[in-house]
Amino acid sequence: MTQTIRTAILGASGYTGAELMRVLHGHPLFRITALTGESQAGKPMHEVYPHLRFADLPALVKHDTVDFSNIDLVFCCLPHGTTQTIIAGLPDHVKIVDLSADFRLFNADEYAQWYGHPHQALELQKTAVYGLTEHARDAVKAARLVANPGCYPTCSMLPLLPLIAARAIDATSISINALSGVSGAGRAAKQSNLYTEIAEGVSAYGIGSHRHMAEMEQELSRTAGYAVRISFTPHLMPLKRGMLATIRVKLAAGNTVDGLRDMLSKRYAGERFVHVLKAGEGAPTTHQVAGTNDCIMSVHADRVEGYALIISVIDNLGKGASTQALQNANLMFGLDEATNLDCFAQFP
Amino acid sequence: MTQTIRTAILGASGYTGAELMRVLHGHPLFRITALTGESQAGKPMHEVYPHLRFADLPALVKHDTVDFSNIDLVFCCLPHGTTQTIIAGLPDHVKIVDLSADFRLFNADEYAQWYGHPHQALELQKTAVYGLTEHARDAVKAARLVANPGCYPTCSMLPLLPLIAARAIDATSISINALSGVSGAGRAAKQSNLYTEIAEGVSAYGIGSHRHMAEMEQELSRTAGYAVRISFTPHLMPLKRGMLATIRVKLAAGNTVDGLRDMLSKRYAGERFVHVLKAGEGAPTTHQVAGTNDCIMSVHADRVEGYALIISVIDNLGKGASTQALQNANLMFGLDEATNLDCFAQFP
Amino acid sequence: MTQTIRTAILGASGYTGAELMRVLHGHPLFRITALTGESQAGKPMHEVYPHLRFADLPALVKHDTVDFSNIDLVFCCLPHGTTQTIIAGLPDHVKIVDLSADFRLFNADEYAQWYGHPHQALELQKTAVYGLTEHARDAVKAARLVANPGCYPTCSMLPLLPLIAARAIDATSISINALSGVSGAGRAAKQSNLYTEIAEGVSAYGIGSHRHMAEMEQELSRTAGYAVRISFTPHLMPLKRGMLATIRVKLAAGNTVDGLRDMLSKRYAGERFVHVLKAGEGAPTTHQVAGTNDCIMSVHADRVEGYALIISVIDNLGKGASTQALQNANLMFGLDEATNLDCFAQFP
Amino acid sequence: MTQTIRTAILGASGYTGAELMRVLHGHPLFRITALTGESQAGKPMHEVYPHLRFADLPALVKHDTVDFSNIDLVFCCLPHGTTQTIIAGLPDHVKIVDLSADFRLFNADEYAQWYGHPHQALELQKTAVYGLTEHARDAVKAARLVANPGCYPTCSMLPLLPLIAARAIDATSISINALSGVSGAGRAAKQSNLYTEIAEGVSAYGIGSHRHMAEMEQELSRTAGYAVRISFTPHLMPLKRGMLATIRVKLAAGNTVDGLRDMLSKRYAGERFVHVLKAGEGAPTTHQVAGTNDCIMSVHADRVEGYALIISVIDNLGKGASTQALQNANLMFGLDEATNLDCFAQFP
Repeated sequence: MTQTIRTAILGASGYTGAELMRVLHGHPLFRITALTGESQAGKPMHEVYPHLRFADLPALVKHDTVDFSNIDLVFCCLPHGTTQTIIAGLPDHVKIVDLSADFRLFNADEYAQWYGHPHQALELQKTAVYGLTEHARDAVKAARLVANPGCYPTCSMLPLLPLIAARAIDATSISINALSGVSGAGRAAKQSNLYTEIAEGVSAYGIGSHRHMAEMEQELSRTAGYAVRISFTPHLMPLKRGMLATIRVKLAAGNTVDGLRDMLSKRYAGERFVHVLKAGEGAPTTHQVAGTNDCIMSVHADRVEGYALIISVIDNLGKGASTQALQNANLMFGLDEATNLDCFAQFP
Repeated sequence: MTQTIRTAILGASGYTGAELMRVLHGHPLFRITALTGESQAGKPMHEVYPHLRFADLPALVKHDTVDFSNIDLVFCCLPHGTTQTIIAGLPDHVKIVDLSADFRLFNADEYAQWYGHPHQALELQKTAVYGLTEHARDAVKAARLVANPGCYPTCSMLPLLPLIAARAIDATSISINALSGVSGAGRAAKQSNLYTEIAEGVSAYGIGSHRHMAEMEQELSRTAGYAVRISFTPHLMPLKRGMLATIRVKLAAGNTVDGLRDMLSKRYAGERFVHVLKAGEGAPTTHQVAGTNDCIMSVHADRVEGYALIISVIDNLGKGASTQALQNANLMFGLDEATNLDCFAQFP
Repeated sequence: MTQTIRTAILGASGYTGAELMRVLHGHPLFRITALTGESQAGKPMHEVYPHLRFADLPALVKHDTVDFSNIDLVFCCLPHGTTQTIIAGLPDHVKIVDLSADFRLFNADEYAQWYGHPHQALELQKTAVYGLTEHARDAVKAARLVANPGCYPTCSMLPLLPLIAARAIDATSISINALSGVSGAGRAAKQSNLYTEIAEGVSAYGIGSHRHMAEMEQELSRTAGYAVRISFTPHLMPLKRGMLATIRVKLAAGNTVDGLRDMLSKRYAGERFVHVLKAGEGAPTTHQVAGTNDCIMSVHADRVEGYALIISVIDNLGKGASTQALQNANLMFGLDEATNLDCFAQFP
Repeated sequence: MTQTIRTAILGASGYTGAELMRVLHGHPLFRITALTGESQAGKPMHEVYPHLRFADLPALVKHDTVDFSNIDLVFCCLPHGTTQTIIAGLPDHVKIVDLSADFRLFNADEYAQWYGHPHQALELQKTAVYGLTEHARDAVKAARLVANPGCYPTCSMLPLLPLIAARAIDATSISINALSGVSGAGRAAKQSNLYTEIAEGVSAYGIGSHRHMAEMEQELSRTAGYAVRISFTPHLMPLKRGMLATIRVKLAAGNTVDGLRDMLSKRYAGERFVHVLKAGEGAPTTHQVAGTNDCIMSVHADRVEGYALIISVIDNLGKGASTQALQNANLMFGLDEATNLDCFAQFP
């Protein structure tokens, strides 16, 4: 007889919470027993998300009314900055996947600099695992607290980390242009995210200053063994979900574009969710990963000799957030990491 | 030990075929063993639909190369008019769900009139079941050939049939305005369906002449017991998938709007895929059913006394095509009709 | 030498205000000399609307800082309910086109019933002209205060009024299904209008209760000579702009579908902005009128004998709001009504 | 009395042709007297583009039926490769703006290499002016044949050329990521451009091989005085129109990000259609230029020291094609280059 894992989603009224409820439906072990949302506490979930109308879900409650002694697993979908004290206050037996940025940076000074205030749970921070699953699987299995990576870092680092580890590229040469769907901005009512302001237009934002650079530089530097700075420019697309990174890298001496592709193919050959296209197969599109935990990447020759271009796609709400969170939680409880995650994109 | 049902999809290169492959993934019994596509025969499926890249699917082949003695179940996704002789040529042991319109009309004269040529499989037509599942469940279970209903008829008749059966509305008063996503038009390259021609605009089409009226009038008349003509106007929306019908009906004497809602609620109380909103719950949106087999409906007072307005939503590729086809196939093979169909819409 | 008309836009930070600034650009007489916006007062227009960056426009100011003795023409784009006292406070020499609903209903009781509070400028109301230009041209020319019609009423009544006036249709039979772009909901930050909530879905709203029914019933009744109630269901589309009404009417005895089309063709033969398609020309789409002051309509046979279907399209921000406002203002100042309005839709 | 310029559009059934007809409407001198389209010859324009229904336009005819002795100005919108012999066959008195790529490359070998066949009008090629207006104004004024630049080159080179001319950046360091609306792919019916294939997804294409690199490298090299190779990756967006280039450059010794911005501000200070945002004004979006001849650019510090990021936006059908063509034609006939081009973007 299998044991049920009692699962809470904190901040369940946002899009990552909704996506978690969708992908947890029918999960063999994880059963949602608590959903929190401060401003909408008291509402049944179908008032918040009518598409979840037919799910058997508890109503939203305020955080401080939850008895966490009855909870085994927490997915924390709270906004950046609000999460540290909340998580620090959970009982020791609870395992946590935190989808916010609060536990991703290991250096407290870096955190303070990028997020504008001192970290409030420094001891807990030391125990956190940066959960880019394919690069931290063993640590995730043993972790109590997993800091789920950001969407841009997931999309960019899956191709970059193996190449840096192999010293196949010059880590100081990395330039990333990334395109994201609007759901990454959350469900808060903002004029700039209205349909009328987004549809039929594109824009760059956070130029030279987006906070996801901090975790990318941390992880890339850790792998490289020296401090790495990257160029990173995110763009907002008229998409509900989807993320594409176009990454330009300089080949290290003795390397070739085909060599890079081979390296990535081998590194990810056994992976269920990371796929490397063969030469001649073109580049992936975000359509191919919408609603899934997949990352698909391709490697191409740049027009300028000695450089390569890498295209990498994920669903920003999927592998970039909620499905990677579930993949990590599956591992933390000894399950097959693909549990409830084996599906195809909905196309068209 | 369960037996595997060997399953073929004819015309697998279209959108309804792709959707079938998606929802058949992981099905406990139905295993796809043949996929046909005349013009793209020889191609592996991932060249036709890259989002199915990681599925273990056979390549597309020409119809006449398939050995149907090894096939138990056929989903026929061929274009209207081409299906009759194909299906007539299948061995007797094969069960068929036909997603085209070819076997939906029981009257050969009606068929010839609406489709412009004589029916070519009149004997087979007599054995076909019009598979609006919730209104033909027993017949579907016993059928060899199910004519899967059109999307507009599914969306419109789920609310209408119980009301006509109960003589709660005047069947001669029905006026349907319906909105459809573009995927209903298929994957053929047409200038009128280019992104540039569709995005940010809406239009009505087939005004007074759309062929789906034929099957609606057939089924509504059959239920009413007298000949019914309806007003029906379809519109093309800048949506990939989704369908909404706004239906105006005149209450029969002694009936009320609340009475109609109660009637529908009771009729569908035990159904897994048909849902009637309560008074005060507003109207459903197509977002709530995208990618699912669900139909959600609501009943409202019209401004003009004695009339009611009904809103009904489905996914035109889901309950309007491929998932209803799977629901029917599940029944034809003695399975729980919800097998592989229990999921939530992907939102946002 | 032409005189400059000093023009103010009240509530200039909304979409109808922005559209007015766009279509007033290069106007030979109307020169924008004041823009008001309470919450954003002090901001230069390019911070509010960067696409107007290169216009020579005054900054937004608070209403009570404007010296209206220096203003000749006011376009009032304030929200419904806030406009009455504002307009009542303007000096007598100022001519006003009010884009809100505040002066559209002539019956104070009707106003109070639909809008939930008593009308606050009853004397002024008596002087207002309901400015559906093609049906009120002479009154508009002579008016000081024009109540610019709502978008749904404009789109629906342009085809309906001539047919009712000619007693060619049964005015008690009218059923309108209408589709609108999201810009009609304005620029306020609302969760329900986020890109993520709107894109790739459609919904009905205000079923049986939308306030535009009040002005439609007023005008239709006035033309019919008896009280008319209509069925009207608006729907929200994933469009930035565009509106389409599908109108079903019952032919009065002795009338035909072709007769209705002829009647409309003749009625609008001399009009610059209202166009009636010929038999065989199909139905118009909203693409054809985006950004223009045009209304295009077509007349079709219904499947049910004795009924006709009319399709009518406008741009909800154009003929449904700002360009009709300019058309009216042109007339109020003795100009050609088409001044600055002669253009084609931007397609694709 | 002004003289009328008799104007022909060759290949008028495509999107650039339609856009030309829109922006020529009301032009004081250019009067459209011939429209050619081989496959749709004989059709009135309103059948091809219903939104042009109310224009007074000639019907489409076959090219060889046009008497070019009565034509003064030709806009050539024919597909790449078909244009050379057509243009070579026009009488000497006709002035031509060619929107295809056929006359953009001055080196016949380069042409043959990128386009796969030898150039067929080598003598004529020598007379062509590469018409990036702001960088070729005098040559355009004197030209008989203007090769209108590609959309990507226009968007990218407006910021790059002044910086290279001033030796402020390292021309060998240029990396361009560009995003384009679908209208750039034309109106031909292609499966890959269906609404269902484009909406809600993004993709990269032509990686390392897009033909627009040829003209960019030609012009950048000409300005630099040495051979320049660039990295360029175009992406397809779910937009009807709009183009954004994100350009990364290495500062030449002694230069700063602010210095680059100043340089561009000064260079374009007197221009009507090229605008450089100030520090602190953020980055432009494609919404701000839709339907216009404008280019807006901004300059930002890269995270990596010594590099700058430039964002540049245009409308791919506007400054990237048809409105720049009109700007050039205005100059060729001695008119103010802004004639009929002074307008704001349609927003929302």
